[in-house]
Amino acid sequence: MNKSDQQHRTATTMGSIKDKLTPVDLSHHINVKSKSRHPSPLKDIIKFMGYDGMISLAGGLPHPSLFPLEQAKFECLAPPAAPSQKTTEAGLVSLNLGRGSSPGDLDLTQFLQYGSGAGNRQMIQLATQLTERVHAPPCEYECLLHPGNTNAWAKVVGLLCEDNDYVIVEEYTYPSAQALWIPLGIKAAPVAADAEGILATSLRDLLENWDEKARGRGRPKLLYLVSVGSNPTGITISARRRKEIYEVCVEFDLIIVEDDPYYFLQFPGYSPQKEDKPFQPVPTQDFLKSLTPSFLSMDTQGRVIRLESFSKTLFPGLRLGYFVANPVFTERLLRVTEVETQDPAGLSQAFTLALFKQWGIDGYLSWLQSLQHQYETRRNWLLSAFYDQFTVVPAADSPVPTAQGDVVCIQDKNGKLRPVFSYVDPGAGMFVWSKFYFEGVPRFTELEGQSLEDPEQAFAQELWEALAAGLVLLTPGSYYHAWQGADKVSTKARGADPRSAYFRFSFATPTKEQIHEGVKRLRKVVGEFWEEK
Amino acid sequence: MNKSDQQHRTATTMGSIKDKLTPVDLSHHINVKSKSRHPSPLKDIIKFMGYDGMISLAGGLPHPSLFPLEQAKFECLAPPAAPSQKTTEAGLVSLNLGRGSSPGDLDLTQFLQYGSGAGNRQMIQLATQLTERVHAPPCEYECLLHPGNTNAWAKVVGLLCEDNDYVIVEEYTYPSAQALWIPLGIKAAPVAADAEGILATSLRDLLENWDEKARGRGRPKLLYLVSVGSNPTGITISARRRKEIYEVCVEFDLIIVEDDPYYFLQFPGYSPQKEDKPFQPVPTQDFLKSLTPSFLSMDTQGRVIRLESFSKTLFPGLRLGYFVANPVFTERLLRVTEVETQDPAGLSQAFTLALFKQWGIDGYLSWLQSLQHQYETRRNWLLSAFYDQFTVVPAADSPVPTAQGDVVCIQDKNGKLRPVFSYVDPGAGMFVWSKFYFEGVPRFTELEGQSLEDPEQAFAQELWEALAAGLVLLTPGSYYHAWQGADKVSTKARGADPRSAYFRFSFATPTKEQIHEGVKRLRKVVGEFWEEK
Repeated sequence: MNKSDQQHRTATTMGSIKDKLTPVDLSHHINVKSKSRHPSPLKDIIKFMGYDGMISLAGGLPHPSLFPLEQAKFECLAPPAAPSQKTTEAGLVSLNLGRGSSPGDLDLTQFLQYGSGAGNRQMIQLATQLTERVHAPPCEYECLLHPGNTNAWAKVVGLLCEDNDYVIVEEYTYPSAQALWIPLGIKAAPVAADAEGILATSLRDLLENWDEKARGRGRPKLLYLVSVGSNPTGITISARRRKEIYEVCVEFDLIIVEDDPYYFLQFPGYSPQKEDKPFQPVPTQDFLKSLTPSFLSMDTQGRVIRLESFSKTLFPGLRLGYFVANPVFTERLLRVTEVETQDPAGLSQAFTLALFKQWGIDGYLSWLQSLQHQYETRRNWLLSAFYDQFTVVPAADSPVPTAQGDVVCIQDKNGKLRPVFSYVDPGAGMFVWSKFYFEGVPRFTELEGQSLEDPEQAFAQELWEALAAGLVLLTPGSYYHAWQGADKVSTKARGADPRSAYFRFSFATPTKEQIHEGVKRLRKVVGEFWEEK
Repeated sequence: MNKSDQQHRTATTMGSIKDKLTPVDLSHHINVKSKSRHPSPLKDIIKFMGYDGMISLAGGLPHPSLFPLEQAKFECLAPPAAPSQKTTEAGLVSLNLGRGSSPGDLDLTQFLQYGSGAGNRQMIQLATQLTERVHAPPCEYECLLHPGNTNAWAKVVGLLCEDNDYVIVEEYTYPSAQALWIPLGIKAAPVAADAEGILATSLRDLLENWDEKARGRGRPKLLYLVSVGSNPTGITISARRRKEIYEVCVEFDLIIVEDDPYYFLQFPGYSPQKEDKPFQPVPTQDFLKSLTPSFLSMDTQGRVIRLESFSKTLFPGLRLGYFVANPVFTERLLRVTEVETQDPAGLSQAFTLALFKQWGIDGYLSWLQSLQHQYETRRNWLLSAFYDQFTVVPAADSPVPTAQGDVVCIQDKNGKLRPVFSYVDPGAGMFVWSKFYFEGVPRFTELEGQSLEDPEQAFAQELWEALAAGLVLLTPGSYYHAWQGADKVSTKARGADPRSAYFRFSFATPTKEQIHEGVKRLRKVVGEFWEEK
């Protein structure tokens, strides 16, 4: 670790940070089942294990001499600004982990053995240092490891929700987050968003006018947000909007779950261009300042549970992340970790710690800048392809002036613009969320005349299949509808805009050439449906 | 892989094995919440992704070129009978994993990326091969990866149990398994055991005489067993007893969860000895034949859900194992895996597959033989220490002829044997479960006269603390009591034998010297309590 990390390490101690606000009492948010979990009785034993000269015939751990793994060596890319020492070849650094290493080194043995549930002490320290460096939360908190945000969210639902509760989500939200709680009878209470994120006014309306009788359930107490580069909408909630939302959450006693895997993938807005921008790193502090402040950074009451993940910054197969939360919540989350998952995998923890020892936190932040640039470049490829294949105009100048962001149009025989879809330039993440306009599309008009229950969905499905037949695949927007119950699935029942439907574009994986060819194929299929014959 | 593994690979295909019995319909065991889980809508997309020339703008995966890990190299112990090629130094073999490896090699990239939930295809194949080799289940089954048996059991409870159900367990059972379901209002219905495991007659009695009104709940439908080297009792259920138990399960429509991390740590009975036995490997088939047949191997109806783990055979930090179960259960378990955990960690899967590629299944089975020998040796150390420090006699010849196994005694002033504790020589695992006899122990008699609610527990606690003060630590038996509700905690309320309590010895971790010194210290503290002053 370099000097500046060392200073942070000195300033912070595991799980307790000085000079922080005391959280307000939020223990009433913990659900009945979570409240009834008991601490492990093994705590008594662990206390005695520390006695000088104690011989323990109490442990149930397999003997570490019987683990077949003796050494692990990882060859990793160096971050752009990483120190050059220990570089084995151009841009590569080596991480070496052995058994019973010398002091200061990581001993692999501890990562092969059972952990404590709370996670390796050094990993928790690292998580705390990262949290202080990036978010400097005003309120006391603890970090607790988890095996990825999918599991973290499952644990949070298990902590806070009762069966048949409502959870407040964005109008279009991550389907796996919902798939988890649909079997519990939990429903979404969606809030509309604009280009700055969910509307605080709509959130307040929802809560103020909550009709307990009609809903069959009390006011929701949990707000779930992918607040940066949301999946699917790509929206990043602005700093101003966050403050407004946080105020409403204080007023109505909501817990905010900030599921934020794309936090470091924030990038500047798009401007049409022919060439890829070169990577120009900025000083680390400037990089951090360029990022939208998190809900955690403004949480003066301890009501934000932040889900941190290395899946998008290192790699998803790590299955490693951490909660940052009010200790009243992390204590209960630790209880469920002990009985539901135990520690994240040891090799994942060992790799991550060794990487941070080698890179330093500053090296990691440099790595993130290069990552940010990569995803920005990919976003640019996709939007450039829209500009190449269609006519893109700001919503105000388009045939759909009420649209958000820009409108992608084709020109009809008379040179008149016909809207195909609108999108908001994503300021982060991997996705462009597009609203398609079906008004005047002959095949849609035909379907609309057939008294179908959901002509929008029927046409969206036809369009999607036609695109797939044309060898370009988008993700149907229907996957992301907030789940409000089996009676609120159709376009009409959801109260969605008629004669429209959404699709999600991802720019994370394809090459520049594939993106351009893909959008060209899209243009062709759109032409077949939108253009007058 | 060697030739014999290859043959198995040819004979088995992923998830569907030929010439197996069709399971009986057990879908009614799946609980309401599990039934309501929907398959991921992404299945439709995956179908189209396979089309020739398809350009996908649908995926949400981070770009693999942005993963910083380029190569992983693991130095591992070689199994005793492993082929000598690729050995870098005495007893070590190297596993090398790179990105985009040559055909036949493992490409690290797939383990860094998000998985499918079902787990890596090759890992599933390996699990299937191991299952066929070791258990050859008569009925159709599927293997599904999970991140360790703790999580596997949590998923099984989530699959089968409704709140407030009863689960049948051994009288003394693994506390974390219970800690999971206590908050759900689930209670244990314990069944007594002898040295061959739980009594099929007692199991039948329990079920036949189930009083739904008194219990407030219908007959239990789930039997949870650590069937080899049980934690804490060390008992391995005999083949004969297993058949009897299975018959009762068929008759009363029970699902058997076979949580079996110690399966390969079965060893022969103890005979007093001064020297450690040398390691004498036997041919692999003889080793496999020496192991008690699993419930899975006799499951003709598909009612066994087997939890397999590499924690005790490779190392716990892997957090990797697999379910072997009726496809009607694995299909639902896959649904919950998708939303609760996703795949086990990629480095754990990559390491394990590379190790098996290097060792072969036969090499792994040789490794297990050496492991078996190690734990046998450790068991011998502990029992030898009992013989050294106490007088050990068969129960029939002891002052407690009704005891199970052997009785550890001290001699009083007149040379008369006084029982301290009895134990059954464990045939597997890491533990010796000991029943202490308090009859005539002055301090216990004193406590018994004080009209305490639970004098046995009070004395057991004092004894435990005195042992800890004497610098030897055992695990209190109270941790392992089957949880029958808050009103059934005391010795009397549980219906346990009066004037007795249990402690668990572990022989997994301490050295030979520590074990002997520990038992010497135990003898000293026992003397202070048991001997007449």
